Amino acid sequence: MENPQVLIIMGSDSDVPVMEEAAKALDAFGVTWEMRVASAHRSPKKAAGLASAAAARGVKAIIAGAGVAAHLAGVLAAETILPVIAVPMPGGALNGVDALYSMVQMPGGIPVATMAIGKAGAKNAGLFAVQILALGDAAMARKLVEYKAAMAEEVEARDRDLQARLGRM
Amino acid sequence: MENPQVLIIMGSDSDVPVMEEAAKALDAFGVTWEMRVASAHRSPKKAAGLASAAAARGVKAIIAGAGVAAHLAGVLAAETILPVIAVPMPGGALNGVDALYSMVQMPGGIPVATMAIGKAGAKNAGLFAVQILALGDAAMARKLVEYKAAMAEEVEARDRDLQARLGRM
Amino acid sequence: MENPQVLIIMGSDSDVPVMEEAAKALDAFGVTWEMRVASAHRSPKKAAGLASAAAARGVKAIIAGAGVAAHLAGVLAAETILPVIAVPMPGGALNGVDALYSMVQMPGGIPVATMAIGKAGAKNAGLFAVQILALGDAAMARKLVEYKAAMAEEVEARDRDLQARLGRM
Amino acid sequence: MENPQVLIIMGSDSDVPVMEEAAKALDAFGVTWEMRVASAHRSPKKAAGLASAAAARGVKAIIAGAGVAAHLAGVLAAETILPVIAVPMPGGALNGVDALYSMVQMPGGIPVATMAIGKAGAKNAGLFAVQILALGDAAMARKLVEYKAAMAEEVEARDRDLQARLGRM
Amino acid sequence: MENPQVLIIMGSDSDVPVMEEAAKALDAFGVTWEMRVASAHRSPKKAAGLASAAAARGVKAIIAGAGVAAHLAGVLAAETILPVIAVPMPGGALNGVDALYSMVQMPGGIPVATMAIGKAGAKNAGLFAVQILALGDAAMARKLVEYKAAMAEEVEARDRDLQARLGRM
Amino acid sequence: MENPQVLIIMGSDSDVPVMEEAAKALDAFGVTWEMRVASAHRSPKKAAGLASAAAARGVKAIIAGAGVAAHLAGVLAAETILPVIAVPMPGGALNGVDALYSMVQMPGGIPVATMAIGKAGAKNAGLFAVQILALGDAAMARKLVEYKAAMAEEVEARDRDLQARLGRM
Amino acid sequence: MENPQVLIIMGSDSDVPVMEEAAKALDAFGVTWEMRVASAHRSPKKAAGLASAAAARGVKAIIAGAGVAAHLAGVLAAETILPVIAVPMPGGALNGVDALYSMVQMPGGIPVATMAIGKAGAKNAGLFAVQILALGDAAMARKLVEYKAAMAEEVEARDRDLQARLGRM
Amino acid sequence: MENPQVLIIMGSDSDVPVMEEAAKALDAFGVTWEMRVASAHRSPKKAAGLASAAAARGVKAIIAGAGVAAHLAGVLAAETILPVIAVPMPGGALNGVDALYSMVQMPGGIPVATMAIGKAGAKNAGLFAVQILALGDAAMARKLVEYKAAMAEEVEARDRDLQARLGRM
Repeated sequence: MENPQVLIIMGSDSDVPVMEEAAKALDAFGVTWEMRVASAHRSPKKAAGLASAAAARGVKAIIAGAGVAAHLAGVLAAETILPVIAVPMPGGALNGVDALYSMVQMPGGIPVATMAIGKAGAKNAGLFAVQILALGDAAMARKLVEYKAAMAEEVEARDRDLQARLGRM
Repeated sequence: MENPQVLIIMGSDSDVPVMEEAAKALDAFGVTWEMRVASAHRSPKKAAGLASAAAARGVKAIIAGAGVAAHLAGVLAAETILPVIAVPMPGGALNGVDALYSMVQMPGGIPVATMAIGKAGAKNAGLFAVQILALGDAAMARKLVEYKAAMAEEVEARDRDLQARLGRM
Repeated sequence: MENPQVLIIMGSDSDVPVMEEAAKALDAFGVTWEMRVASAHRSPKKAAGLASAAAARGVKAIIAGAGVAAHLAGVLAAETILPVIAVPMPGGALNGVDALYSMVQMPGGIPVATMAIGKAGAKNAGLFAVQILALGDAAMARKLVEYKAAMAEEVEARDRDLQARLGRM
Repeated sequence: MENPQVLIIMGSDSDVPVMEEAAKALDAFGVTWEMRVASAHRSPKKAAGLASAAAARGVKAIIAGAGVAAHLAGVLAAETILPVIAVPMPGGALNGVDALYSMVQMPGGIPVATMAIGKAGAKNAGLFAVQILALGDAAMARKLVEYKAAMAEEVEARDRDLQARLGRM
Repeated sequence: MENPQVLIIMGSDSDVPVMEEAAKALDAFGVTWEMRVASAHRSPKKAAGLASAAAARGVKAIIAGAGVAAHLAGVLAAETILPVIAVPMPGGALNGVDALYSMVQMPGGIPVATMAIGKAGAKNAGLFAVQILALGDAAMARKLVEYKAAMAEEVEARDRDLQARLGRM
Repeated sequence: MENPQVLIIMGSDSDVPVMEEAAKALDAFGVTWEMRVASAHRSPKKAAGLASAAAARGVKAIIAGAGVAAHLAGVLAAETILPVIAVPMPGGALNGVDALYSMVQMPGGIPVATMAIGKAGAKNAGLFAVQILALGDAAMARKLVEYKAAMAEEVEARDRDLQARLGRM
Repeated sequence: MENPQVLIIMGSDSDVPVMEEAAKALDAFGVTWEMRVASAHRSPKKAAGLASAAAARGVKAIIAGAGVAAHLAGVLAAETILPVIAVPMPGGALNGVDALYSMVQMPGGIPVATMAIGKAGAKNAGLFAVQILALGDAAMARKLVEYKAAMAEEVEARDRDLQARLGRM
Repeated sequence: MENPQVLIIMGSDSDVPVMEEAAKALDAFGVTWEMRVASAHRSPKKAAGLASAAAARGVKAIIAGAGVAAHLAGVLAAETILPVIAVPMPGGALNGVDALYSMVQMPGGIPVATMAIGKAGAKNAGLFAVQILALGDAAMARKLVEYKAAMAEEVEARDRDLQARLGRM
């Protein structure tokens, strides 16, 4: 991807099944993305380089997924003024509580916007990037309004299905 | 504030000493803000109304601070497509772990960008809003770059002070 | 259900296998119920509407089941003076601790009566609604007394079975 | 109190400063109450006796406050079909998480309606009892509607105060 | 069992697979036991009755196994001066942390001797009862000394096996 | 103390203010005790020696108080067949949860009877030792029965005081 | 192994599948090791003996793996001045949080260097021992530099693979 | 300090009161040290530079102290093959549990040797560095043996003091 709008970075390619939820959310809104593997600990220069070069490439937001002692989002945020959105990975003995604390408890000065642990968090990371982009894109903003309406309608549909199943409506 | 760029909403005016860190961060970058009290539980219509009206007023991001069963950020996010940034309040018997979980563990579809518990989180919420605004404001982006450089320089200064104190350099 | 005595609302139809324990408990006492899907975040107006209209429909108690950042019970309680009983869903990376804290740690002014995480909690939510209704229904109160006696007798029976199995009585 | 509507039982008289929040909430709605000290462990017969005799005395709900291994609410619920509302006390090395888990995680069959840890929970326990009583008392229901409106108005007032303080409205 | 030395009580017969570890440990030392089902909540009178009658039957220690809001051990301890040994059950959404806190955090005056969550705890509950009985039974004390020596020897044997497997000794 | 019945060992003399609650409980029943400082880590031979020599000195139970990574009780239990009763110290960054887990989660084979964190636990450790000794001492058993009755009576007295204060009886 | 450089001790041979990750890491750098089973509780003299004899045998570091109330590392550290590296085992009801706290929260005076829970921790324990040995072994230090470079290159390779899979490079 | 043996790096100069415990421990053994302020997030290049240059300066171990989302140790470990020893700072809403998890849960490949939260951990970090240096310094090893003996003797002395105070020896 020459000039992606969003850069998705994960600490290990084993995180792809979770982090592709972010990519799907971006695709649904026509937002371009690049997905990269870079580790805060095993390839720190690459990670820092991706972050520090991102703004000049036109990237508008970085999504970082990592597990256990999840330093990736903080390490990226240290190297860029772009919004960094973090997704704590589940798994490991603490099932993501360690990753959540490592991501969300950033000291003052270097914000990291943390989402829920796992797939819901990855999807929301994508949507949150869309919300940021929609601030400067009226068409995308309209699509977000429709997306919200569709979610409400889907709840409605599931409620109708449940009533039908219960034979009670 | 007629047309603030950022709307800071807190569940109780007892949260002001924490949430004013967000306002200070915004002030440092010349970002206009409005600070309001609205409760997800005690004044739900007001909270929803502030959120649903925000985009039309030109607001670009909403910062929500709340404690214990901190539903405020989620309730606001349900009513707007603007980015919602959450600050869990410390205090209460669980000292903010409840607020953190209530804010960060949002289900897929409604993102809430959660910051650290307490003042560091409030400050970062302000800075994160600045980062979002800087995507469309080159001067603000430059200021952020300078802010990052100043932080590094401040660490440098504190290190020099420490060396002096230790009489070891 | 035209005029249910109890309204069971859940954030997602995937919660039905847990929440039907509440319905079964109500059925056992002849209490009528309506089970609905409504999300605090994806369909907030619907959720608020169900809650605010409930009292006028003759509903006596609302049971709310939700997971992760489980705001549903609090959002419903904000819109009604009816007793709201909450059931935290298990599942997710934190397996319901997040839902428990999001439900039980309500600020003063808006009570939510929280039950155990999962099926035991859903069953007890139903029974608790029955206990409330029995305050004004002597026949139902008698049934509750019998139910308690039957529970004690079932423990007795299981103890006898165990003694038989152990060949020790 | 000859025939209180609500029975407030606490494991130790050191819990009075927390539990009197429940009494105040009941007083605000003209609900009569009796406050007693009875321990699940040190005076089990007294605790059981208070619970088993309550219904015949016309009590409509029992509020139980206890700390650490807080068995009181469960022990009372075992002896009555009245709604039992639990308030976990803060304090001790775990500051109420132990009391919360001991109260809320009741097994199926014996519901205990758990409120937040500490004063907010005690206040809400009182309000929840009022909500139960209001099901059969239209005047009390109207008062609850007014109470909710007054809470919203108080938020409004605090918001206005904040605007005044900020000199920004 | 006419006059068991140890009374094993569990809240549900589903706890047998865990609690039989206690019985096995007692059997290994020739200690007689009775295993009963009695619930602190569903059959409180039975539970209290078993505890209060135990001393007169010649019982020397009571072992109580229970899960979630595990009040059983505390409720038994309230009714007897015999040593009560508690085994928190694993399982449920919190996997026994709730049972552990409910058992171990007893207030001053009513001791409950808590063991580890699950099978290791049940086995140790049996061994601890043996240790108590061995205070007045020199033959049993000798058997305990041999048991300890056999444990050390078993570690030795497993170490030798490991060395053999590693082909390194 | 030539031949104490109970040996109280603590990892640091800073634990005396907590552990003297155990001594007071023993004194109240005329049980003799010896209180020693010995560390599982700083003086392991002394700790092991105290434990392995205890039985021959006529000691009937060992009470161990320790904080943070509280290995003391387990290390003592490894060296004796006497009942070992553990008291987790509060304090430190985790306020005793670490000590609790380090004491209660013993593997199968080496039981440690764990009490509550802090003073309540220390008092109960003393009482539990009394309960063990009372198995072979009818007079002490009678005193325990009286102690239980006095506790119930004290609750009664506090309840009467509360009624008087409330002016409601 | 006559004179191993590293001694790997585990509390149970069931820990081999985790602890062999440490051995593999040592093998990769040509470091000799001995793997032993010794329990802090079931064979305390053996455990202490292995630790106290290690330095004289030329051992340079001890790696200790244990679960639940994991006292092994602390008990070994009490008997040696060699660096002791701890690996908390996953499993049990608390899945290693108990082992982590039991290992890492050592009091001042007796350091234990704690690694992550489970296989990652075991691997890192091996690598950390290599890092210590490399301080006095320039060839090993060079190998560590290469190892780090290879890790970075592997991340690079996985990133390339991901790009190929995504068809986006 | 031209060529310190140990490099102590902390994320903020507010950590000095904790981290000077490490320096004191090093001083007690005549180990030279340099104490620096460098932040993983605010001055990442400086932090990385200190770590990557350390080995060439003759540094033998790095001690890193940081709080909340404590990435410093991991970020340093990514840049050096020297042993990195981590000290989680207490404080913040989670009082160091976040720092502990952020430091200890490192993924395989990049070890960080984590000590206890706070001053005990800082002291032990210093001692652990001494233990590493003592592997190649027989005089320092002898001093460590004496240090251990002195600790045991101090426990002995405190025990004697306690006996004197109790008037029981």
